[in-house]
Amino acid sequence: MSSRSWIDNGQSNPDEAPYYLAVGNEVEIFEAAFHQKLPLLLKGPTGCGKTRFVEHMAWRLMQGSPTTDSNLITISCHEDLSASDLVGRFLLNHDSTYWQDGPLTRAVRDGAICYLDEVVEARKDTTVLIHSLTDHRRTLPIDKTGELVEAADGFLLVISYNPGYQSILKDLKTSTRQRFVSLEFDYPSEPHEAEIIRTESQGSPGEAEKLARLGKKVRNLKQYGFSEGVSTRLLIYASTLMRDGIEPALAVESAITCAVSDDDEVQAAIRDIANLFWS
Amino acid sequence: MSSRSWIDNGQSNPDEAPYYLAVGNEVEIFEAAFHQKLPLLLKGPTGCGKTRFVEHMAWRLMQGSPTTDSNLITISCHEDLSASDLVGRFLLNHDSTYWQDGPLTRAVRDGAICYLDEVVEARKDTTVLIHSLTDHRRTLPIDKTGELVEAADGFLLVISYNPGYQSILKDLKTSTRQRFVSLEFDYPSEPHEAEIIRTESQGSPGEAEKLARLGKKVRNLKQYGFSEGVSTRLLIYASTLMRDGIEPALAVESAITCAVSDDDEVQAAIRDIANLFWS
Amino acid sequence: MSSRSWIDNGQSNPDEAPYYLAVGNEVEIFEAAFHQKLPLLLKGPTGCGKTRFVEHMAWRLMQGSPTTDSNLITISCHEDLSASDLVGRFLLNHDSTYWQDGPLTRAVRDGAICYLDEVVEARKDTTVLIHSLTDHRRTLPIDKTGELVEAADGFLLVISYNPGYQSILKDLKTSTRQRFVSLEFDYPSEPHEAEIIRTESQGSPGEAEKLARLGKKVRNLKQYGFSEGVSTRLLIYASTLMRDGIEPALAVESAITCAVSDDDEVQAAIRDIANLFWS
Amino acid sequence: MSSRSWIDNGQSNPDEAPYYLAVGNEVEIFEAAFHQKLPLLLKGPTGCGKTRFVEHMAWRLMQGSPTTDSNLITISCHEDLSASDLVGRFLLNHDSTYWQDGPLTRAVRDGAICYLDEVVEARKDTTVLIHSLTDHRRTLPIDKTGELVEAADGFLLVISYNPGYQSILKDLKTSTRQRFVSLEFDYPSEPHEAEIIRTESQGSPGEAEKLARLGKKVRNLKQYGFSEGVSTRLLIYASTLMRDGIEPALAVESAITCAVSDDDEVQAAIRDIANLFWS
Amino acid sequence: MSSRSWIDNGQSNPDEAPYYLAVGNEVEIFEAAFHQKLPLLLKGPTGCGKTRFVEHMAWRLMQGSPTTDSNLITISCHEDLSASDLVGRFLLNHDSTYWQDGPLTRAVRDGAICYLDEVVEARKDTTVLIHSLTDHRRTLPIDKTGELVEAADGFLLVISYNPGYQSILKDLKTSTRQRFVSLEFDYPSEPHEAEIIRTESQGSPGEAEKLARLGKKVRNLKQYGFSEGVSTRLLIYASTLMRDGIEPALAVESAITCAVSDDDEVQAAIRDIANLFWS
Amino acid sequence: MSSRSWIDNGQSNPDEAPYYLAVGNEVEIFEAAFHQKLPLLLKGPTGCGKTRFVEHMAWRLMQGSPTTDSNLITISCHEDLSASDLVGRFLLNHDSTYWQDGPLTRAVRDGAICYLDEVVEARKDTTVLIHSLTDHRRTLPIDKTGELVEAADGFLLVISYNPGYQSILKDLKTSTRQRFVSLEFDYPSEPHEAEIIRTESQGSPGEAEKLARLGKKVRNLKQYGFSEGVSTRLLIYASTLMRDGIEPALAVESAITCAVSDDDEVQAAIRDIANLFWS
Repeated sequence: MSSRSWIDNGQSNPDEAPYYLAVGNEVEIFEAAFHQKLPLLLKGPTGCGKTRFVEHMAWRLMQGSPTTDSNLITISCHEDLSASDLVGRFLLNHDSTYWQDGPLTRAVRDGAICYLDEVVEARKDTTVLIHSLTDHRRTLPIDKTGELVEAADGFLLVISYNPGYQSILKDLKTSTRQRFVSLEFDYPSEPHEAEIIRTESQGSPGEAEKLARLGKKVRNLKQYGFSEGVSTRLLIYASTLMRDGIEPALAVESAITCAVSDDDEVQAAIRDIANLFWS
Repeated sequence: MSSRSWIDNGQSNPDEAPYYLAVGNEVEIFEAAFHQKLPLLLKGPTGCGKTRFVEHMAWRLMQGSPTTDSNLITISCHEDLSASDLVGRFLLNHDSTYWQDGPLTRAVRDGAICYLDEVVEARKDTTVLIHSLTDHRRTLPIDKTGELVEAADGFLLVISYNPGYQSILKDLKTSTRQRFVSLEFDYPSEPHEAEIIRTESQGSPGEAEKLARLGKKVRNLKQYGFSEGVSTRLLIYASTLMRDGIEPALAVESAITCAVSDDDEVQAAIRDIANLFWS
Repeated sequence: MSSRSWIDNGQSNPDEAPYYLAVGNEVEIFEAAFHQKLPLLLKGPTGCGKTRFVEHMAWRLMQGSPTTDSNLITISCHEDLSASDLVGRFLLNHDSTYWQDGPLTRAVRDGAICYLDEVVEARKDTTVLIHSLTDHRRTLPIDKTGELVEAADGFLLVISYNPGYQSILKDLKTSTRQRFVSLEFDYPSEPHEAEIIRTESQGSPGEAEKLARLGKKVRNLKQYGFSEGVSTRLLIYASTLMRDGIEPALAVESAITCAVSDDDEVQAAIRDIANLFWS
Repeated sequence: MSSRSWIDNGQSNPDEAPYYLAVGNEVEIFEAAFHQKLPLLLKGPTGCGKTRFVEHMAWRLMQGSPTTDSNLITISCHEDLSASDLVGRFLLNHDSTYWQDGPLTRAVRDGAICYLDEVVEARKDTTVLIHSLTDHRRTLPIDKTGELVEAADGFLLVISYNPGYQSILKDLKTSTRQRFVSLEFDYPSEPHEAEIIRTESQGSPGEAEKLARLGKKVRNLKQYGFSEGVSTRLLIYASTLMRDGIEPALAVESAITCAVSDDDEVQAAIRDIANLFWS
Repeated sequence: MSSRSWIDNGQSNPDEAPYYLAVGNEVEIFEAAFHQKLPLLLKGPTGCGKTRFVEHMAWRLMQGSPTTDSNLITISCHEDLSASDLVGRFLLNHDSTYWQDGPLTRAVRDGAICYLDEVVEARKDTTVLIHSLTDHRRTLPIDKTGELVEAADGFLLVISYNPGYQSILKDLKTSTRQRFVSLEFDYPSEPHEAEIIRTESQGSPGEAEKLARLGKKVRNLKQYGFSEGVSTRLLIYASTLMRDGIEPALAVESAITCAVSDDDEVQAAIRDIANLFWS
Repeated sequence: MSSRSWIDNGQSNPDEAPYYLAVGNEVEIFEAAFHQKLPLLLKGPTGCGKTRFVEHMAWRLMQGSPTTDSNLITISCHEDLSASDLVGRFLLNHDSTYWQDGPLTRAVRDGAICYLDEVVEARKDTTVLIHSLTDHRRTLPIDKTGELVEAADGFLLVISYNPGYQSILKDLKTSTRQRFVSLEFDYPSEPHEAEIIRTESQGSPGEAEKLARLGKKVRNLKQYGFSEGVSTRLLIYASTLMRDGIEPALAVESAITCAVSDDDEVQAAIRDIANLFWS
């Protein structure tokens, strides 16, 4: 057990790039946005690789930098995430209060990439907070201290959201949305996904291929009112269980069939697909 | 009266396995997930044995371990359970504040199994909190201290939920759900349940068999709009009351008929079933 | 004016049993549940004697006990009752905080009967809190201190609720409900009620009989959309006012007719019934 | 400017009874309830004299008492009135907290009459709080200190509510309501009201009579959807303005017509009535 | 920059009466209510002069008073205005708490006029708080300190509200409303308004007359679903902009047309009216 | 990385005016309102230049001023913005509390322009707070300290809102709205916008012209239920990406097509328009 600082590239060995297979121009656009200081919005379904892409780009942009400190701060947003959680708060110590920067303020001061995952889940004060960071001002006002922090050079704000989820109540305000260059993600192509499954699970290439094909078929099960699909992550789980000695059919049942739905018909349909590969 | 630490295998004698009768491959899958560090989701109706299964597996996985400390932390989730309740909070002592780890942080640091029972009942910040613990990162960010805790080796996150309960408002987000290997539970088969009733209540084998048969019949009372069934726990209660000298009909009336429903028709139907065995 | 501790058997003289007239097997079941450590749920309408029954049983079970301390803690639940109100909280004293047990923790540590009156009125965190106290664990986790309190021997959890009140929003969760042996209560029979009225009010036997008959007739006024009936308590009030010298018709008007309803038609119907006895 | 203690009989000269004209048996019932320690519920429209009646009774019951301290605590209930506001709270002083009794606790300890005006407006925890004060226990549990305060002899709980206002959301729970002897109030008869108007405003008897007749007619304006009527208080205001030299028609316009409604038709109808007396 | 105390007559020179043109008997009624200690309710649309009237009366009633301190405290009510904001709160200083009076308590102690602007916007605890100040008691209970403050002689409570706004959710409770003498306000007559515009803006009399006529016509635009009208204040703004050299048509466009509505049709209709005067 | 004070003209070099192209009489009206101390309301769609206009005017009005301090405080409003966030709060330091002015109080004391961006997003207490600052009083009452701050000479309150967004729940109250001179903004004309794009992105004039024409066409896509249009800011982003070497079609796809909508049909329609210019 050990504990590291907030700034985190998501891997133990900083010399090695986090594994990511590019599928379009996303690397090129991210680099241009970084150089031009334009904030980025990543759109796409759950588990398709957005978080990994940001980790990969953070590692890539850090190469050649004189410092060896990492340069990525990731924040999973939720309904109770308040502006104070991002910006900081006063803490009490020996009769007096002192200020402690939150993760966003740390990123702004230190020039790190700040990744707000599923930003629409956060409270509205959070989304408005980032306005002055996403236009020509590039400043973060800290109302509790009266400080106005200018973003350091390497600072880039990246946010993600999943258009499939959005309801009327939880949508990006237009005045927030129209401050971001956008990249759309989808699940990887079948051969790409097979390679990812094999690499991440260190499992058998043959099973990885079958799982990639199963993934594609499951994502087509729209006629059952099943719109979410299966994430690449769960396909990797199935391959990992197989590598640990679990029977393929049982691994698929636990990691995929029961994991993606409680609906009997959807589960039966997935079992039918699985039987094509492991009967 | 005594008080023990949070970490708790649910029994006084750590040398004896908590009683659990396996009904499928659940032991095998749990062990593989534990070894591969894949988080687990247990689905099933109330009182079917999910909590006991986790206690059993925790005991089993601890055997052979050099330490004698127990390795399970169970948290019953509810609407007011906040991230702070899980992660920890600052407390005041002699003019200054100090940090106290919550039960989840304890499990992450110490490498224990953390079981979040009925996780969908918790506030949304709680479910998002576990995201970074359930992917390749295996880290818990503590935003109030700026610490990023890496999970120790034995850490495993296990959550449960009851698909029968879920409403649209209280459902696992897809982005949470697709991070777990899933195991589906149901009530045990009639002979299994009879054995469980007899063992747990230390009651008569004959009455245990009758109660198991009654349980099965009560679970079939769907035509009365009674979808919840009766838990194995209540069948054990009835057997326990009988062992204490209560008349079987009266024990069933108190432990089962009045306990599962307030509806006159449902109660009458259960009484009709009970009359088949103890008239 | 004096003040006593929380633990309270509801009467000044601990040598005398709180008055309670048993109407079925409720005493037998309560004793068996107490011996077998099975939690109890009491169901029934308002003012039918549930609280008094618990006080009576607490007194009864304490007889023969070496200690003379009382053994009952009663908590009236309401919408704002939080887990902290039951479990305890930190208080500040001279620069440092100290822990103060709440009433539930006191009962768990001291082995008292804890009676949660109208439990469905409480916040949801309260009902989940009692889960680990109502299964084989018999433990109360105190998340703020990290302590896990094991219930002392005499601890018994008793909860009550009124099925007539329940709405969809306020109902016992099945996973809570199926942890309790249940006892159903109703208003006492006419002769029983007459005896209770006379004993409690120390009033005239003749008037007590008339009031018991009036009570029965009022509870039958369903055709006026009046489903609540009249509690035994209000019948006792009427007898008490008569004993103080108030005219019977006026005593019934104040203690019963105006007390149970604001509806003109319901009040007129009750006056018609009262005229049969005191015209 | 001066400040007195909480306990307040609503008048400067404690030797003089607060003015109140009895209209039925309310004095007799109140005295019997006081002697028998039965809690009281006063029902009736706004401004009909409920508060004044309680002040009158408090004065009356205090006569002959050895102490000259007053014996009434009045609390106007509202949506944000919490249990702490009634029972008390911890305050901070020189590094430590001390307990301060709230007005209800004061009344319970000192044996005063506690009048909760418009009790249904209060939060639900408030209404449940009074349960143990309104049955045989006559105790107030203070959960924050663990104290159980027994009511002193003179303590009486009196609550009021206006049945005309009640909505489904704001109604007395049956389990609360069936703990009180009830008294129904209405506006006084015409000659009674004329005498009250004259006495309170020290105005002309002739104008007081006219105002009492106007009051009766305004309360009959049901055909305009005007159900609230006019309070005796506003009739007194009109007489007071006249005594100060304001023209009667103008006094009625300001104190009554514009005061009771914003509706043009209702105002016109009241003006028509006023013209019958002061044209 | 300077700062004055809370008590404020709204003008720098206390020797000069705040400008107010009386339109009916409002001055006479206000004075009688002040002498008889009857609370006042001012009803009327936004910007018609209610605040100015109160300032004028406060100045007028202070003339001849021995003290030169001002005598008016104005509080704009809003949804988050709590009883504590009005009554006061404990503040911390060197290890102990001390009490600070809120503006209402200041007015009650010092005998000032307290003006609660748009009182229905405040939280309900605020409106109930004023009950004991508006009947024969004239007292303010401070529950946090246990003090009962008697109102000093000059204290008068004045509240305002706009009947045009009220919804069912935000209305004065009858039990509050029937405690006030009421005065109804409307926009001034055309010549009155012209004089007010000229005096306040120090602008041209001819333009002031045209603006008063425009104001009257705009208030008649009911057929466009435009019910709010235009306030005298905005007509003064237009005259002020003209005096600063802005073209009349442009001044009307900015201060009136665009200010009162976002609706294209309403704006076009106002432009048509403006063209009659400045084409 | 550096940090500056709250007061901020939005640019590093205070000698150079923030770039703004006037499109009507807005500069003239702003100056007159500033001189006459009339508060201003700016209406218009997102990203059309309202913030930049305020920065420009603040710079312009500061020219010739003896001080070199900047004179603009901008506050982005949101649902959780409370009165305390604007006015200030007490902070704790060595056993005692001290007062810290919020940004609005700073502006009022120092005579700065205070710009409340998207004011209807703020809580209601915030909008009422500004009432006494926007009429003849020009004062800010600080209820927590009892201070009444008079606005210094240069103080001007400017608020903005987007009429396209407003729902019934979030609208300016008439009593707030009718306190402001109003200016309506829209997107710039095509040649103006081309010039702005070129200047801000320092990109190619030809591409800027094409982007301005594309912007106009996209804003006409009403038939797709797409009412928000595209902000000038996103057109600048596209030009910036092109200047960085990104292919025009790809730059438009990321900065405009994917950025403004998730809807397939709207995206396809925008792609069709883009093909007219960069095919």
